Amino acid sequence: MYSAVDHQFMSEALAEAQNARYLSNPNPRVGCVIINDGQVIGRGHTQRVGGPHAEVQALADAKAQGFDPLGSTVYVTLEPCNHTGRTPPCVDALIAAKPAMVIVAMADPNPLVSGKGLERLKAAGIDVRCGLLESEAQALNPGFISRMTRGLPWVRMKIAASLDGKTALPNGQSQWITGSLARADGHHWRAQACAILTGVGTVKEDDPTLNVRDVKTNRQPWKIIVDSNLETPLNAKVLSNPQTSGVILVCASLESQEIQQKAKAFEALGIEVIPMSNANGKVDLPKLFAYLAQERNMNEIHVEAGFKLNGSLLREGCVDELLLYYAPFFMGDGIGMANISPLTDLEQRQDWRIIDQGLFGPDLRVRLGKK
Amino acid sequence: MYSAVDHQFMSEALAEAQNARYLSNPNPRVGCVIINDGQVIGRGHTQRVGGPHAEVQALADAKAQGFDPLGSTVYVTLEPCNHTGRTPPCVDALIAAKPAMVIVAMADPNPLVSGKGLERLKAAGIDVRCGLLESEAQALNPGFISRMTRGLPWVRMKIAASLDGKTALPNGQSQWITGSLARADGHHWRAQACAILTGVGTVKEDDPTLNVRDVKTNRQPWKIIVDSNLETPLNAKVLSNPQTSGVILVCASLESQEIQQKAKAFEALGIEVIPMSNANGKVDLPKLFAYLAQERNMNEIHVEAGFKLNGSLLREGCVDELLLYYAPFFMGDGIGMANISPLTDLEQRQDWRIIDQGLFGPDLRVRLGKK
Repeated sequence: MYSAVDHQFMSEALAEAQNARYLSNPNPRVGCVIINDGQVIGRGHTQRVGGPHAEVQALADAKAQGFDPLGSTVYVTLEPCNHTGRTPPCVDALIAAKPAMVIVAMADPNPLVSGKGLERLKAAGIDVRCGLLESEAQALNPGFISRMTRGLPWVRMKIAASLDGKTALPNGQSQWITGSLARADGHHWRAQACAILTGVGTVKEDDPTLNVRDVKTNRQPWKIIVDSNLETPLNAKVLSNPQTSGVILVCASLESQEIQQKAKAFEALGIEVIPMSNANGKVDLPKLFAYLAQERNMNEIHVEAGFKLNGSLLREGCVDELLLYYAPFFMGDGIGMANISPLTDLEQRQDWRIIDQGLFGPDLRVRLGKK
Repeated sequence: MYSAVDHQFMSEALAEAQNARYLSNPNPRVGCVIINDGQVIGRGHTQRVGGPHAEVQALADAKAQGFDPLGSTVYVTLEPCNHTGRTPPCVDALIAAKPAMVIVAMADPNPLVSGKGLERLKAAGIDVRCGLLESEAQALNPGFISRMTRGLPWVRMKIAASLDGKTALPNGQSQWITGSLARADGHHWRAQACAILTGVGTVKEDDPTLNVRDVKTNRQPWKIIVDSNLETPLNAKVLSNPQTSGVILVCASLESQEIQQKAKAFEALGIEVIPMSNANGKVDLPKLFAYLAQERNMNEIHVEAGFKLNGSLLREGCVDELLLYYAPFFMGDGIGMANISPLTDLEQRQDWRIIDQGLFGPDLRVRLGKK
């Protein structure tokens, strides 16, 4: 059904989509190439929120170069949208451009609109195909797909540890376990997330900025701190510049006067405080993630937390992907990776599936997904 | 200096040497191919102790096929021996066969004889070269080289753990953490060792056989149990069949009457008991390894021990290589990989160097050497 040439051009569209990796959140990363007589006459990827989508960008690129997309073939990694959001529908722009064929890698994952863009294109007399390099296209947007299909973000947990699974010395010292290449790789994963999530314990012990530093990007992810009792110090580094990099403190409840006072101090700094309580008076983590996806349009959440919060997130089934870095030494005594419930039998184990593994300088990265 | 053809035939000799991997201990794994007119006319590898070395085996192979090695080129992965051991010197056999050239991957690592075999061949008018694919040849025989150059065996420590570095549940349950492919790989490493070393704790808790099962081999490695006070149960599985698979119990001292009595009971079963005390009344591990290399001709020791002995071996600098298997799950609480001295600062860490990493079924293997 698809030719080698189709595969080649869709691969180019997928490569184009990579340019949106640190840019388009919460919109999906989409790439588009337009082909006439075997030549690329336009290419584009999703721009910053409010800016053009990939198809419109590619059409504009063709026009700017003096090419007419009439009779062309358009390769796009996600079904063109048929609704007016912050920008007009992409299907209208495509129909107006009169390509002969549109080849799509994957349908829109939103069940409410899936297939409708394709139908509109077909109704306009355009030859439409869907499904070329579909799994590659899905891999571009785990968070967007998760949000559309499950109403949840894609939660990726990063942990850096020694060979024997220790993340910090008994005295708490943890900087730096891994080397510069592993840390830079970690910043690429931070940069593509909608938010970086941590716990108040890590803020108090390590005082991290949780900024993206090793990646060229114009946007900083949100920072989310799980902090039941609002114990984050007002001078914590993670709270600085809330204007360029929004901060959300998630507490258990705002009922007491004392916590309301604390909340006011944070809000005066431009920091949001939201309550998210479960029946035990702790932060309700599953509810928090549903809120972040459904109310805040967050696709991927990058977790960099400590032993306790990591354990809670794993125990409550909130984690979709593990991003583990192992530095090549033994620590012996120290703080572990995640405080999961002790097993009494190995048959209780919850297995993950290794996606890939590789070296970053002297350190090993292992990425795992749900089995 | 060396042609592509030379590389090709030395690669064949190296592949031939692999056939000696589970066979030739404590002799080095050596491969040999004999070439005439661009054709392999004979090939051989080191046989079981007392049997022919690779060169003699290859010459016999040529003869059996009706070929004359006169004027041939001989590729051999280790310098031919010039001394009479259990078999006559290989250089004599080569000189009698009158090849035109002998190309050797590496000189004999034994400083007392290194180069002497090459000199004898040269003196007989044979063109001799040495150093082709030397590091590949060295990688075949880390144990033999270590014994010859350091008077110590090559000590490889195998540990199977969860992602968070736990080797057993808090209740001691540890079978099976890794899957069948990882365990089979572990048996290949067992099979190539001269001995498998463990501690009395592992014997009492897991009662392992420490046999090679998943590899076709006619020899079983020695089993060595570090057991200061001779607490190994007389009915432990590891003690069965000491005739086909020798067992050495290493205690701290044989001075007390009580321990002499215990030793007699083991010796009655055909099990050796040797004392190896350090100043603290514990087993002197560095002295033990020197003894195993120098008095018992052991090349590679495969360690499968527990938290305590692993820690002692690492702390005392006895370990040359780590063979780590990680199963893709978190255990949370449990028994750690190695009881090393707690660090008070990350700068005290002792770094290893990752040699390779790869999947065995669902599990990850990471191999590390000294930095």
